[in-house]
Amino acid sequence: MRAIVASAAPRPAGHYSQAVEHGGIIYVSGQLPVLPDGTHQPELGFEDQARQALVNLLAILDETGAAPRTVLRVTAYIVGVENWPRFNGIYAELFGDARPARTVVPVPELHYGYKIEIDAVAFVEGQPEDVAK
Amino acid sequence: MRAIVASAAPRPAGHYSQAVEHGGIIYVSGQLPVLPDGTHQPELGFEDQARQALVNLLAILDETGAAPRTVLRVTAYIVGVENWPRFNGIYAELFGDARPARTVVPVPELHYGYKIEIDAVAFVEGQPEDVAK
Amino acid sequence: MRAIVASAAPRPAGHYSQAVEHGGIIYVSGQLPVLPDGTHQPELGFEDQARQALVNLLAILDETGAAPRTVLRVTAYIVGVENWPRFNGIYAELFGDARPARTVVPVPELHYGYKIEIDAVAFVEGQPEDVAK
Repeated sequence: MRAIVASAAPRPAGHYSQAVEHGGIIYVSGQLPVLPDGTHQPELGFEDQARQALVNLLAILDETGAAPRTVLRVTAYIVGVENWPRFNGIYAELFGDARPARTVVPVPELHYGYKIEIDAVAFVEGQPEDVAK
Repeated sequence: MRAIVASAAPRPAGHYSQAVEHGGIIYVSGQLPVLPDGTHQPELGFEDQARQALVNLLAILDETGAAPRTVLRVTAYIVGVENWPRFNGIYAELFGDARPARTVVPVPELHYGYKIEIDAVAFVEGQPEDVAK
Repeated sequence: MRAIVASAAPRPAGHYSQAVEHGGIIYVSGQLPVLPDGTHQPELGFEDQARQALVNLLAILDETGAAPRTVLRVTAYIVGVENWPRFNGIYAELFGDARPARTVVPVPELHYGYKIEIDAVAFVEGQPEDVAK
């Protein structure tokens, strides 16, 4: 097991790693729409927040060689289910042909007043279980 | 990694697959109580919604050869924690002897006004890590 | 796949196992701050609830030989995002040097009126995929 450290994504705000890898699987912590330098921007509109949270998630995956095509599951926590179509649109734009399993979970609130948080599970290409397929 | 397509379950309503498989593990997307033909029925009572969401989940697993006995984890998102006992009853009926790890998460609302959404992780029988056991 | 039974943690309140193991990975069900003997204490303060839920989680992992250092992902559901710093403090105290991937999810309510529920994914040391690393 190893901790992933991606300088292109915001540093953890608490007692967790941005992501960890074990057995060829990467577990990414919930990503908020914080700027990589740590600047908070909870006043941004939902679409900009969704884009920033996804950019942070993808930056962490990129550090491990993972990418949208190697993502297995995404869980997105959103404030306001009416934002579902907006989330789906931004997500489709950034994930392109990749369509991992996904659950969108409405929540009453999020840390720092944000409207979206996203976590994921991905695999590392070239690992034994991948080569065997 | 491969996407699962189960014609006996509703088609994805957005940019995701019903489920994906990698390394012998199946990740199933959140399933709502939509009918397999796409008909919405948010006015159904909680028990009927729980049953339909579980039927959809099991139909997707069935497409991969998985079944309740190969489910590892279930996360159920429900509106109204007072529905917990009703959910548990329907779930016990459909899962029978299988008792995977489970978390029931109360949420303020769900897509289309539904009262329940369920996702899961399962394994594929006959894969190397299963044979080895 | 095998079900984990830990007598040092509360017995399941419904149709699920405390945890299951498959392919060297342990999936732990959502743990509430119930005492191991089944006594409910929803009136406890948030910090005491967080500590008890984590103690229950770690007792189940201990049954399998797992420990904070083998935890890959934690999802904590909390009522009231203002409890985030308190959760993080207790968590850091109990996890020590271990910093798995983590998502903290605010929810409107939890079963029995509790303020926190925690689930996790961990690995079993000494399994093939661990030895290979």
